[in-house]
Amino acid sequence: MNLYDIKDPSFLKNLKLSELKELSEDIRSFLIESLQKTGGHLSSNLGTVELIIALHYVFNSPKDAIIFDVGHQAYTHKILTGRTKAFDSLRQTDGLSGYINYEESIHDMWESGHAGTALSALYGLLYAKMIKQEDGEGIAVIGDASIMNGMSVEALNLLGNDPHKRGIIILNDNQMSISKSVGSLSKALTRFRSNKVVIKSKRIWQTILPDILIRVLSRIKRSIRTLLQRKNIFEDLGYMYIGPIDGHDLKGLIYNLKRISKIKKSVVLHILTDKGKGHKDAENDSIGTYHGVSKVSSKVKSGITWSQVIAAGLDQLQAYKKTFVIMPAMTVGTKMDSFEKKYPDRYFDIGIAEEHGATMAGMMAHQGVDVFYPIYATFSQRAFDQILNDIARSDHHVVFGIDRAGIVGEDGSTHQGLFDVSMFSLMPNVVITMPYDAQEAFDLLYYGFMNQNHPFVIRYPRGRVSHDEKSVIKFREIKPEWTYFKQGTDPLVVISYGPSLDLVKEAVDELKIDATIINARFIKPIDQNMLTTIFSKDVKVLVYEEISNTGGLYPMILKFMAKNNYKHKICEMSITDKVVRHGHYQDVLKKCQMDKASIIKNIKELML
Amino acid sequence: MNLYDIKDPSFLKNLKLSELKELSEDIRSFLIESLQKTGGHLSSNLGTVELIIALHYVFNSPKDAIIFDVGHQAYTHKILTGRTKAFDSLRQTDGLSGYINYEESIHDMWESGHAGTALSALYGLLYAKMIKQEDGEGIAVIGDASIMNGMSVEALNLLGNDPHKRGIIILNDNQMSISKSVGSLSKALTRFRSNKVVIKSKRIWQTILPDILIRVLSRIKRSIRTLLQRKNIFEDLGYMYIGPIDGHDLKGLIYNLKRISKIKKSVVLHILTDKGKGHKDAENDSIGTYHGVSKVSSKVKSGITWSQVIAAGLDQLQAYKKTFVIMPAMTVGTKMDSFEKKYPDRYFDIGIAEEHGATMAGMMAHQGVDVFYPIYATFSQRAFDQILNDIARSDHHVVFGIDRAGIVGEDGSTHQGLFDVSMFSLMPNVVITMPYDAQEAFDLLYYGFMNQNHPFVIRYPRGRVSHDEKSVIKFREIKPEWTYFKQGTDPLVVISYGPSLDLVKEAVDELKIDATIINARFIKPIDQNMLTTIFSKDVKVLVYEEISNTGGLYPMILKFMAKNNYKHKICEMSITDKVVRHGHYQDVLKKCQMDKASIIKNIKELML
Repeated sequence: MNLYDIKDPSFLKNLKLSELKELSEDIRSFLIESLQKTGGHLSSNLGTVELIIALHYVFNSPKDAIIFDVGHQAYTHKILTGRTKAFDSLRQTDGLSGYINYEESIHDMWESGHAGTALSALYGLLYAKMIKQEDGEGIAVIGDASIMNGMSVEALNLLGNDPHKRGIIILNDNQMSISKSVGSLSKALTRFRSNKVVIKSKRIWQTILPDILIRVLSRIKRSIRTLLQRKNIFEDLGYMYIGPIDGHDLKGLIYNLKRISKIKKSVVLHILTDKGKGHKDAENDSIGTYHGVSKVSSKVKSGITWSQVIAAGLDQLQAYKKTFVIMPAMTVGTKMDSFEKKYPDRYFDIGIAEEHGATMAGMMAHQGVDVFYPIYATFSQRAFDQILNDIARSDHHVVFGIDRAGIVGEDGSTHQGLFDVSMFSLMPNVVITMPYDAQEAFDLLYYGFMNQNHPFVIRYPRGRVSHDEKSVIKFREIKPEWTYFKQGTDPLVVISYGPSLDLVKEAVDELKIDATIINARFIKPIDQNMLTTIFSKDVKVLVYEEISNTGGLYPMILKFMAKNNYKHKICEMSITDKVVRHGHYQDVLKKCQMDKASIIKNIKELML
Repeated sequence: MNLYDIKDPSFLKNLKLSELKELSEDIRSFLIESLQKTGGHLSSNLGTVELIIALHYVFNSPKDAIIFDVGHQAYTHKILTGRTKAFDSLRQTDGLSGYINYEESIHDMWESGHAGTALSALYGLLYAKMIKQEDGEGIAVIGDASIMNGMSVEALNLLGNDPHKRGIIILNDNQMSISKSVGSLSKALTRFRSNKVVIKSKRIWQTILPDILIRVLSRIKRSIRTLLQRKNIFEDLGYMYIGPIDGHDLKGLIYNLKRISKIKKSVVLHILTDKGKGHKDAENDSIGTYHGVSKVSSKVKSGITWSQVIAAGLDQLQAYKKTFVIMPAMTVGTKMDSFEKKYPDRYFDIGIAEEHGATMAGMMAHQGVDVFYPIYATFSQRAFDQILNDIARSDHHVVFGIDRAGIVGEDGSTHQGLFDVSMFSLMPNVVITMPYDAQEAFDLLYYGFMNQNHPFVIRYPRGRVSHDEKSVIKFREIKPEWTYFKQGTDPLVVISYGPSLDLVKEAVDELKIDATIINARFIKPIDQNMLTTIFSKDVKVLVYEEISNTGGLYPMILKFMAKNNYKHKICEMSITDKVVRHGHYQDVLKKCQMDKASIIKNIKELML
């Protein structure tokens, strides 16, 4: 059928099973083709095509609310709710969001972006429905990696025990989380999976025998099972557990969802899906390469990624100091796979358990072990209290690799790395740094492990750094000081850090001003000597930071000025205290008035 | 025996069971007597006397590391490690900490203060021991409320599945968390408890029969159980589960701990303790009144607590707007018990699950329900990412009651409410307020629910507010503006908020300066009109804030000044960016150079 004609999911009710199957094939082909052009989360969306069709077939959205955990796996939901046309602009500036988005559709019930929120949101929805005396079901779709996250279990524990609330949890088990599942629960799921054949054969006799007989037989079977077999963990927590069933078998999905819709108790429906179903490479991908794909580009990008630089630096560092890596489920994203292979005894993938990881790191540091905790800026927020209490307060030497710092581009508002500087700078004892280039990344990494005893943050952006892959970088000893990126004679000083320095220089060059540009690679504490030198002259100062404007260098410099009675004219450029949406990096920079033209405009106003 | 003679726990090894029992009685009497003088966590410490004696008897601290979750239940550990004498100064300025403290003893292995960190710390310890090739056990002592916290389950899930790591988890089940346990796990524990009699009788035949026969019988029994009985949740997660056993029976504790020390697998030992054991009132306390006791004082304190004011305000507010309360295990502490009784349908105690609570609140607000989320400032840190992403980013109208904001006094560094303003102010859309008195608390509460659509924070300190309990406060309509606390004619403006305004006024009065004092009850966003008025005159400005100095009003005012080119002299008083220890409020204020004398000194310098 023509996917572009779909307005809302109501048309599904009139389709026959064979038509639903055709639809699933159409959607799958569309996704593979469309994502080749735009990029996006390929594997997870190929895995949920049948599930989402079945959900919209059996339930009535938005009265029945479908809550997607993270929300990156809901492309089929977007198609079924009338957004096919917008896929041309998927994850592009002003285009279709890659996640659930309140503004796009009334069917988008829960916007989150971070793992593990769906079950708490489901519980909140059920309470809200109770208070508002509204009908309708709440259905949460959550993956096998997310359900092991702490906050998921908090909600799981509460909902299962609530006899007045009934929620439906679809455990979308693709037998692989973003990189891999870890822990006992994962092991338990593996055990359940062995029942798959049994369940399948069960469905065969279900189609042959009359309904009443099936029910009687099921009850007998259940009684026998209760007597002989132990319950599984979900039943322990108070849920009816159904599964595992084949998540690509539309008939089975619909049968079970209909069955569930008649039950009054909270249910966990465990479905098995193949991540990347229908795309050969993605199906065989065991490490998560196809988790997110980039659009096919004719240009070969030069240089290596910042993540690669840090991974290479950490590898080289092992000659000087043996470090232990705690990895919160981002081995592929942070490019640490070769480190993991090379030093398996010094590497531990904890799954999506950022809180646990931070506290574990705190204790290891307390015991004198050198720990590296690489984590995306946005996900480091999850461990705020653990970092503040168990690392910063107690001044434990943990080195954080804060990846994806700054504007992340296509992933959008829930993934921006704009709060990490504000967040870390409010914590006592923490040293925060950002390298300008690959060499400085090496130097800061070396400094952080060899010359620091405090909690140490090295933050770096998404994307690539100009660097000749063949040239070997060597560690240099550095001091915790700012440096001159460029010394000038005109009375303008621009202070910035990270790759932003290039943009600043371009703007200054274009203005033909011989400004001084300072590389404030140590963001906290600030370099008071350098500041004293700067303010000893009659200059104007611009501070440029690609972070949210509540923290960072600028307020620290203002405090220094107020304390020391400097009255120099100073202005800031940073991301305003607003939510920053998805889009291409350059577009977002422009929208946030942080692009080269904006720098030029600001300098002109400052120099008036 | 004389508890004051104890230097370290090694003496225990030579004691007979009868002597250990005597010791436990001596410690219990000492604690009851000592805490009457100093105050402290009575109930939980009376519950762990025998356990801690048994642990130090069987294991060898610090080679075997005992990790206490939270650390408020370790008074017996302090006595056994030579700190009896210091109990006179318990929780006093420069005195013995009420928690585990690295500086006090080599036996203090894990300092945390927040619930749920022990298992992650245990796992970190085991990894560190592996890397350092060190011998020794890791033993975590954790309560039934903490073990249900998300991060505990993250660690539980990982450790149970690790065949190379062996940890010992003592589940100290006092059948009541800080207020009460909730959820399925709690229900499961209740179920296990019914086995208590069986376990007790088992111990009787164990004393009669020869060791080899016991082992054979145990094995047979275990096989039968495995065959017939379902496993419990800990076994599901990969642990050997032993229990529940009587946590006050020294013989049983020692027997089981010795048994465990010979096992190679990770173990959960489930012990049942009576919180408040040996103290009649505390034993019968089902709601947590005796969780922490204050020292007996001859002075009757006047006024009511801030928590009571907010609870009363929320009660009155129900006539205007029905609000739903999500309560993270602090019903007694936040004085919400009468609200819970009066509106059971609009009250949900979620247990120690701050993350879940915040996301649940986000969804409820998204559904149009008015949610109040009362939470201690220090514990709100636990939900940082959920508040930032699911409430602030999406601009959901949740009202936060941030209790224990500011210096908390006796609880010390892990409990200080000094980071909430910095934390909330880095989040987009959040409005942050603090009332000066009970009337303003009512007004802000009313404003927050009736006139705000943004996330709204009302923060209030620990302790009492001057207010005649009999007079009824009525809501007043207010505007989001600062007010004149005192208008003066001298060229000094002091800006502050909350009860600090009284201290500021005292200082100004003592200096006989007719200063203007501004009540900046809206901390964010700042009142730009008022600031324009202030800076239109030739004045000097002091900003006084009882918070950590990285966030707050001061940097926002500096930014406003820089943007508008105001060159007025301005100085700040706030808590320096350091860890603030326990002590009496006034002492801590003085140590942080925030007391009246310091204000006077600062004003004098400013006015030079």
